[in-house]
Amino acid sequence: MRQPLHFWVVGGDPRCLALAQALVGDGHTVHTYALGPKAVCPSNTLNSIDNADCVILPLPAHSGELLNAPLASEPPVLEHVLDALAPGQLCCAGRVSPELERAAQARRLRLIDYFVREELAVANAVPTGEGAIQIAMEELPITLHGARVLLIGAGRLSRVLAQQLRGLGSKVTVAARRFSDLAWAEVWGCTAERTDELRGWMCSYDLVINTAPALLMGREELEDLKPGCLVIDLASAPGGVDFAAAEELGVKAIQALSLPGKVAPVTAALAIKAAIYNILTELGV
Amino acid sequence: MRQPLHFWVVGGDPRCLALAQALVGDGHTVHTYALGPKAVCPSNTLNSIDNADCVILPLPAHSGELLNAPLASEPPVLEHVLDALAPGQLCCAGRVSPELERAAQARRLRLIDYFVREELAVANAVPTGEGAIQIAMEELPITLHGARVLLIGAGRLSRVLAQQLRGLGSKVTVAARRFSDLAWAEVWGCTAERTDELRGWMCSYDLVINTAPALLMGREELEDLKPGCLVIDLASAPGGVDFAAAEELGVKAIQALSLPGKVAPVTAALAIKAAIYNILTELGV
Amino acid sequence: MRQPLHFWVVGGDPRCLALAQALVGDGHTVHTYALGPKAVCPSNTLNSIDNADCVILPLPAHSGELLNAPLASEPPVLEHVLDALAPGQLCCAGRVSPELERAAQARRLRLIDYFVREELAVANAVPTGEGAIQIAMEELPITLHGARVLLIGAGRLSRVLAQQLRGLGSKVTVAARRFSDLAWAEVWGCTAERTDELRGWMCSYDLVINTAPALLMGREELEDLKPGCLVIDLASAPGGVDFAAAEELGVKAIQALSLPGKVAPVTAALAIKAAIYNILTELGV
Amino acid sequence: MRQPLHFWVVGGDPRCLALAQALVGDGHTVHTYALGPKAVCPSNTLNSIDNADCVILPLPAHSGELLNAPLASEPPVLEHVLDALAPGQLCCAGRVSPELERAAQARRLRLIDYFVREELAVANAVPTGEGAIQIAMEELPITLHGARVLLIGAGRLSRVLAQQLRGLGSKVTVAARRFSDLAWAEVWGCTAERTDELRGWMCSYDLVINTAPALLMGREELEDLKPGCLVIDLASAPGGVDFAAAEELGVKAIQALSLPGKVAPVTAALAIKAAIYNILTELGV
Repeated sequence: MRQPLHFWVVGGDPRCLALAQALVGDGHTVHTYALGPKAVCPSNTLNSIDNADCVILPLPAHSGELLNAPLASEPPVLEHVLDALAPGQLCCAGRVSPELERAAQARRLRLIDYFVREELAVANAVPTGEGAIQIAMEELPITLHGARVLLIGAGRLSRVLAQQLRGLGSKVTVAARRFSDLAWAEVWGCTAERTDELRGWMCSYDLVINTAPALLMGREELEDLKPGCLVIDLASAPGGVDFAAAEELGVKAIQALSLPGKVAPVTAALAIKAAIYNILTELGV
Repeated sequence: MRQPLHFWVVGGDPRCLALAQALVGDGHTVHTYALGPKAVCPSNTLNSIDNADCVILPLPAHSGELLNAPLASEPPVLEHVLDALAPGQLCCAGRVSPELERAAQARRLRLIDYFVREELAVANAVPTGEGAIQIAMEELPITLHGARVLLIGAGRLSRVLAQQLRGLGSKVTVAARRFSDLAWAEVWGCTAERTDELRGWMCSYDLVINTAPALLMGREELEDLKPGCLVIDLASAPGGVDFAAAEELGVKAIQALSLPGKVAPVTAALAIKAAIYNILTELGV
Repeated sequence: MRQPLHFWVVGGDPRCLALAQALVGDGHTVHTYALGPKAVCPSNTLNSIDNADCVILPLPAHSGELLNAPLASEPPVLEHVLDALAPGQLCCAGRVSPELERAAQARRLRLIDYFVREELAVANAVPTGEGAIQIAMEELPITLHGARVLLIGAGRLSRVLAQQLRGLGSKVTVAARRFSDLAWAEVWGCTAERTDELRGWMCSYDLVINTAPALLMGREELEDLKPGCLVIDLASAPGGVDFAAAEELGVKAIQALSLPGKVAPVTAALAIKAAIYNILTELGV
Repeated sequence: MRQPLHFWVVGGDPRCLALAQALVGDGHTVHTYALGPKAVCPSNTLNSIDNADCVILPLPAHSGELLNAPLASEPPVLEHVLDALAPGQLCCAGRVSPELERAAQARRLRLIDYFVREELAVANAVPTGEGAIQIAMEELPITLHGARVLLIGAGRLSRVLAQQLRGLGSKVTVAARRFSDLAWAEVWGCTAERTDELRGWMCSYDLVINTAPALLMGREELEDLKPGCLVIDLASAPGGVDFAAAEELGVKAIQALSLPGKVAPVTAALAIKAAIYNILTELGV
């Protein structure tokens, strides 16, 4: 990747604020637009944005016709932003929708989604895990040290949470389907349980964290929980917990989504920056 | 220690609620008084309290003339409670004041302070550490993973926090005076710094946690901090941070005291229970 | 999986000895053959082996025409063993060769290779990692605590070694090619380096452990090492280290293969047992 | 401490070799005597040793009349070395005997024992722990991951071993007498047992490591162990294990003393160097 480059950061939440600042800190030339009064290097117009080596749109890039720009006094129209770019110009955006894809193609932009990058998903597991831990600390009357925690799923997020919770002294059980995931759980120092054998064994946990995109915490499992057990669902909607049943049963169940931007916007920004640098390196920019 | 025993739990906050419940769970006979509507085995009078093997008063036991009983509709007068006990009866209380000491002696009670027990102090370091971590997670826009944390002091609390923070992936520096404490810091995987050499080197930290009962974070040290650095003071009053200077300088500094009862009352209750059991074992009850 | 089953364990090293014993401990009926004088339930002939629910051959199953049976006074001929089995009988073996595959097909045996199971590979990473740590402890005049260790590769083995070495207090750098692996390295608390940027930066390490099946430790990298640096190659032959160059340069380089059976045969046996149980569960036996 | 200083390193094992080299690496002027052919800056005589800022004798300093100098072709007589020093000269030695104390006083030397320094004892716990782990890895047919380990004692060494063993994934029980030590064991994530309640509960362990200077592993405890359990005694002589009974019972019991110098002489040398620097700092040299 060449040094320095010329970036425009257009719209976004506190993550994009921090991203712009970090790009400046790395020595790049940066302009920002629609990032509110705290933004570095703010521009009032999109003039000369077509000179940028890379234009960065937020995560997600837009909501309907408007750019996702909660910090701007008036969020700009997505199409107006795209119209200001030059054909062939590189534009990185998060969670690219089919509409944005089409709009970019119509303008022959070189649009790349940074949110699909595996390294970003890995890095985001850390603030997501810390966010879940923060919620558990706020809600539970016990310490995580010594707490019995059930992690459902054995993907990225569970792997990171297992490390974090064990680091705090929790007794962690990982529920998974695949034999190799159960073997990993034991390598991490956790107890391993098969997902299909959970029912009837839920009553020993103080905290259940679901990371699997499947309805594994249904009414029967929720009925099994001991009083006061907290349930946190980190799986993207529709999630893995029957929230209606939880409410009826008086089980506290919390759906926690998009934690990185909420609990650690600066760390989340650095992860996005790293992903964009990797994209630029791969493109030979 | 004999099983079962007969306990009275009189007054106190949610810790004493949880303590009474845990004693019941262990099979003991329990009465509670002045613990509010959620208490197990509530009694409306102190009649027959003089039969108890052990009477448990809260932590701290009283505030002025009144028993410390925030959950009761009307906190009882401390002396009235003591009057109901029998000469020679065993009474365990937390943070015993000279006044309570005198009042107990006048009645020939066998008064023992559970809060001076070293094992309770060790156990309380865990919820205190988790409380500090919760505050840091709530306040900082970065993850603790990768954060540069300065721990001032190398006593119990720092030892536990070093373990917890390293478990979450922080980069921890421990500042201490004694050479042996600096050696311990390195054993824990931390960087060690001499307390008297901190000045001029504070600018690299994202979080400073003070555990030492000495004013080590004065104006000059606070001026040195990088913008956004959070300071948490866990040392008992007057503490180790110049809060007036911090406010002037725009440094966020939080004094966090008595965390166990606030962030993890159930865990804190179990630690008190263990200390009381140890007292009873030593007394041959 | 039904309980109890009838197993024959035929041939093998101390792992198979321990495997037979563990199967007995789980309540199964077990016969052993060609496992030497310490074997449980030894049989002098293969009579009635055709009644077994599952016949277990060693890892690897054979060497040329002979069964792999280093503990037997006289290793039996592989074909003789296979001839004693019944058509359709279940036979589990490790690292099945094309010759064994053909011989089994000719006899219509139901031959399954347990060594290709992912959960066995995961479980074996633990004794392999401990074996590497043992070698490093034996060879190095420094503690692993505080040692600077370079792990090349970011697969199963590196993941486990990163956890083990960090648990002992080493300062670990992981070298990998993929951006997502570099992100994982940082999640684990390690420093991440791109494999193609190692040259010129090798001089800070006390220990280099290669787990990648590529010649990454060539002459130039070896020349770069600081005096006394130890190199351990865990990649299967031909491995990732230029051993000839290492010898010329006076660099101590150790090729360590098949560690689980050597350093922890009992643990390795339990991992094989778990894999075989999983096979039987999947087959509905 | 002034920089640079003038040191003489006289006699000693590979630790003193490494110590002399490290002092050179720090920029000091160094002479060595009676350290064998591999020593840096060797001197054939003790001429001008009386100019040194600090003379360093080995650990232990002598054996009978001779200096402890196993690497020298002919170990010098201790008194001859002392005679070469100037009255008032600073001399640091390890494990100073009453004889050496007297001989130094007679010559008005300023003799200081570095081995009594608490920071050296703390630092030495790390190589001692790694040495015990190396022995356990060499002797046991199972991995330390998942192994059930009993640590007897809760001093420095147990504290470090608990951290190391937990880092490798062992299931650790700590046996101690004091309630506060039992509380610490739980903080570390270990199970806590009272030392006086061990008898009858020894059969679940794969490894027992004694660090307490009391005969806690007597015949009855040894009889209780499960077959194959390994016992390592790290307590200084006479130690805490009835070795005669162990031999009769066929229990493998290993007395492992002075591990730092054996398993990690270079790390041990750095710990001695740090202790000597601290002595010099305290003396204002």
